[in-house]
Amino acid sequence: MRTVKLTPETRKEILTSLLKRSTFQYGSYMDTVNRILEDIREKGDEALFAYTEKFDHVKLTKETVRVTPEEMEEGCRQVDPDFLRVLRRAADNIRDYHQRQVRESWITTREDGVILGQRITPLERVGLYVPGGKAAYPSSVLMNLIPAQVAGVKRVVMVTPPGKDGRVNPQVLAAAREGGVTEIYKVGGAQAIGALAYGTESIPKVNKITGPGNIYVALAKRAVFGYVGLDSIAGPSEILVLADETANPRYAAADLLSQAEHDELASAILVTTSPELAEQVSRQVDRFLETLSRREMIEKSLENFGYILLADNMADAVDAVNAIASEHLEIVTRDPFQVMTQVKNAGAIFLGPYSSEPLGDYFAGPNHVLPTNGTAKFFSPLGVDDFIKKSSLISYSREALQGIAEDIQAFAQAEQLTAHANSIAVRFEEEE
Amino acid sequence: MRTVKLTPETRKEILTSLLKRSTFQYGSYMDTVNRILEDIREKGDEALFAYTEKFDHVKLTKETVRVTPEEMEEGCRQVDPDFLRVLRRAADNIRDYHQRQVRESWITTREDGVILGQRITPLERVGLYVPGGKAAYPSSVLMNLIPAQVAGVKRVVMVTPPGKDGRVNPQVLAAAREGGVTEIYKVGGAQAIGALAYGTESIPKVNKITGPGNIYVALAKRAVFGYVGLDSIAGPSEILVLADETANPRYAAADLLSQAEHDELASAILVTTSPELAEQVSRQVDRFLETLSRREMIEKSLENFGYILLADNMADAVDAVNAIASEHLEIVTRDPFQVMTQVKNAGAIFLGPYSSEPLGDYFAGPNHVLPTNGTAKFFSPLGVDDFIKKSSLISYSREALQGIAEDIQAFAQAEQLTAHANSIAVRFEEEE
Repeated sequence: MRTVKLTPETRKEILTSLLKRSTFQYGSYMDTVNRILEDIREKGDEALFAYTEKFDHVKLTKETVRVTPEEMEEGCRQVDPDFLRVLRRAADNIRDYHQRQVRESWITTREDGVILGQRITPLERVGLYVPGGKAAYPSSVLMNLIPAQVAGVKRVVMVTPPGKDGRVNPQVLAAAREGGVTEIYKVGGAQAIGALAYGTESIPKVNKITGPGNIYVALAKRAVFGYVGLDSIAGPSEILVLADETANPRYAAADLLSQAEHDELASAILVTTSPELAEQVSRQVDRFLETLSRREMIEKSLENFGYILLADNMADAVDAVNAIASEHLEIVTRDPFQVMTQVKNAGAIFLGPYSSEPLGDYFAGPNHVLPTNGTAKFFSPLGVDDFIKKSSLISYSREALQGIAEDIQAFAQAEQLTAHANSIAVRFEEEE
Repeated sequence: MRTVKLTPETRKEILTSLLKRSTFQYGSYMDTVNRILEDIREKGDEALFAYTEKFDHVKLTKETVRVTPEEMEEGCRQVDPDFLRVLRRAADNIRDYHQRQVRESWITTREDGVILGQRITPLERVGLYVPGGKAAYPSSVLMNLIPAQVAGVKRVVMVTPPGKDGRVNPQVLAAAREGGVTEIYKVGGAQAIGALAYGTESIPKVNKITGPGNIYVALAKRAVFGYVGLDSIAGPSEILVLADETANPRYAAADLLSQAEHDELASAILVTTSPELAEQVSRQVDRFLETLSRREMIEKSLENFGYILLADNMADAVDAVNAIASEHLEIVTRDPFQVMTQVKNAGAIFLGPYSSEPLGDYFAGPNHVLPTNGTAKFFSPLGVDDFIKKSSLISYSREALQGIAEDIQAFAQAEQLTAHANSIAVRFEEEE
């Protein structure tokens, strides 16, 4: 891995380079995506099936688009029972963590008859996009389904592109069953996003769409934002390891590689104050590379978006961490919790030498759907909050309203909204 | 107002008609908006000032784009001191309500050294768009600023289009001061959204943009979503009054009119089980119209998007309420809290005869920035949650990691991610 001295200039260069991975770089695909969405909106199933035949090479009909109970059964039978047990244990941990995110509706009352509150209700229908092909991850199914389940969403609709044999990945089916979902449609790509946003004869319109996908899926999601809700726009995976001289270089190298293997756009960055560590990590990366199955992919992603950044001191290092706002951040320093207090922007923070990032991918419980590409500055990990909505509650007594009637009318008059003022006045006029 | 019998057909017609008000109907403006955004991105201030001259007829320079302390002072002096006191009282109520939304970071620990948690931190920089002209509402300034302040956002940047005299509305300045903001730029429209999203020489790039605006502002916000965070896409205002025979027709009529006066696209709908009430409300609306200052506007919006819907029974009425998912919902029935339990989708719910909607616009405390156009099915009122982000915290001891090492590796192998498995294995290998 290349080693770069951290300066304001190199920091800026690296940030610019990372942004090349943004979905905003793919504006030229937008016409294609818009055409697909428009077709789905106008022609429903007909267009949906035509695009599935074109892109996935599978012919669907109203009768075959949905995964049947028999297909579900057969798929799950193909999965190693040991793996099913692992899946179950992971699901338990994920459920446990997300249960802690559940929030209650609340009200506050005053003796003069004022009631104010915030009511929390689950979304009614959610669509979950699950990628197919090399990116078919059962863990991702659990991470999307369980928070929805915990939030109380009644109907979750899953879409996932079929393989060339017209079937859905068995592990994905097993994870769906673990997450309590049986409504699964064999469609993917921008056309599946369109179907969930607008509804077709076969596929119900949903209120919100979550789940990662390729660039067409990401662009289609952005195009329907506002028409439905979204989780966030997923980008390529990222890891940033912030380490001082106390870190084990072999662990750091292994963790950097674990993200670099995701795809060619993945990013793996070490920020360290220790020149010795920098050198050792670089060497360990080379050693591991010889043994890993996705070597080519990893080499490409390291070449494109892998850096070892040498910082003069921890303050500069943390500033860089905050500017990069990585999806995954490992803090491997003498006192990781203290360093964490300085971190402003990161999706998930892993503290100490035994908190390796893959722990968070599968098992610990926190969600692995995390903000990427600098969006940890404003987006959050997927969670129960993504599957609820709030309504304000307001109830006043006559007495309480009378007490502030003049103030409200003054405000309304100042904004020249006389019908607003009238709606208060009418309640205190003399009976006619 | 026209009275329509509620049937599945009329319900569908009305829903279709309301959606005509969606920003998605304005795709043809998108090219203009994209061009403006592109110009701002490439040319910064130069383009920003050129568009301000073109659209707002004001010449700006780096020296004059920002509101000076003197301009702030002068503006506030022009505002009636009585109104300043009303503003202060409203701000106190809004602050009080939003304080209750504040959430704490949390952790959970296990004796084997597992620490999991969720850390909440404020966004660093937020941009607030404040409309100018006829839609310059000081209440809106408070409703956006106070939750940001309560959340702990350090830097709030406000943009608002200048009047033809190059100045900012004095009430808006007074509200900004009340909300603790002094960084105000005299720019508006899509160009201001571009400046906040990309940054220019004069205007800092922010992490999130909130605040309502015209159609160009709404489309520009949607175009930069993902590059920055957004509150929601604001549409025209709406009120839905759900009433039975116990409701006062004069109050209901006054409340319907209070939203209809906002603009020609505003929607005011009464859903009732009582034919008598339907008739009386219709008559009262006509009577009030003769006295209200925005009569023409109101007549247009009632003609376009005003309905009295007669339902056979309360269950059908509530179903329609849930399908429409109104921004504001008043429940004026014999037992409004019981009816409320059936409501799934609404931005703010006003219960009982003395909870008129304008109470929520200014004074009660809950936010008046609410989901419109059916988006209450997935969006929520603006609040403290919009100005924070979450990070997951994960820390494992060696012992705890060892306990699940096999499971994680099994999961990683199932997903064919060997570098993921390696990152766990390396921590338990024999020392070399």
